[in-house]
Amino acid sequence: MDILDTIKSRRSIRKFTDQPVSDDMVARIIEAGIWAPSGLNNQPWKMAVIRDQEIKSRIAGLTHYTKCVLSANVLIAVFLDTSLGYDRTKDVQSIGACLQNMLLMIHADGLGAVWLGEILKNKDKVKALVKGSDDLELMAVLALGYPATEGGKGSRRETAETVFFSR
Amino acid sequence: MDILDTIKSRRSIRKFTDQPVSDDMVARIIEAGIWAPSGLNNQPWKMAVIRDQEIKSRIAGLTHYTKCVLSANVLIAVFLDTSLGYDRTKDVQSIGACLQNMLLMIHADGLGAVWLGEILKNKDKVKALVKGSDDLELMAVLALGYPATEGGKGSRRETAETVFFSR
Repeated sequence: MDILDTIKSRRSIRKFTDQPVSDDMVARIIEAGIWAPSGLNNQPWKMAVIRDQEIKSRIAGLTHYTKCVLSANVLIAVFLDTSLGYDRTKDVQSIGACLQNMLLMIHADGLGAVWLGEILKNKDKVKALVKGSDDLELMAVLALGYPATEGGKGSRRETAETVFFSR
Repeated sequence: MDILDTIKSRRSIRKFTDQPVSDDMVARIIEAGIWAPSGLNNQPWKMAVIRDQEIKSRIAGLTHYTKCVLSANVLIAVFLDTSLGYDRTKDVQSIGACLQNMLLMIHADGLGAVWLGEILKNKDKVKALVKGSDDLELMAVLALGYPATEGGKGSRRETAETVFFSR
């Protein structure tokens, strides 16, 4: 698939089948994330992979999107390692690039995922559940699995509303 | 190309040939950026496209990477529109996802680019050159064109150094 098609056809998926995601697929997703660019190549990300039902249930209780988390086969919690950081804005951008690589990989491999940000309201509780060190700050949780639903229609503003200057 | 190969083979390119990048290619790159995910789908990005030699020269004077900017056929300056923002960390992550989509599109189309962050030290001066409104904050400048050099080798930490928890 052309990469523009991959990018444009990706949607948030919030309901998953029971089919397990293989360790190999999780490894590919993480590898995609790791190959994101970062300022000074500082690679400020750290990740936790969660399949354990007990931990998943406890994380599900920390977000409004409980059902989605319970339905997911795997959760990948992505943290900013502030001990590796050099500039908050640039580091957080890199985390976004890392997350996007993972979402594209997930989609290209026929899986689905949703990028959970609302759970950041409980970021320290999530961190405690995966025994994250003091230097780590939760940036997002990806809930993923084989899609049990179609994604939404998707909508974006036109290019003409986005590009304010061209010369 | 498999998307993991696209992700892993992308490198920063800092020297470009004189071959012009077509408007259609720039449009594809911007479209790729626009289709990044964002919290609440707020799409907090705004972009300026610069081909004009005079403006490019002035931007080149605002960064340590002068030659790279002068060599680039096109610059795309990406801004956070704070009037569309809802959460600084999540908005900046979305900008990172948008930038990464553009870098992958550029690479997949046989172009090269570098993500310039150092220029943020002069973010208000860059904004003035493209007549950006008060609500805009420069997040990065992409310098792009047809590659005149190979990219570097690229290096990343191992997965085992990145994933600190797996259960």
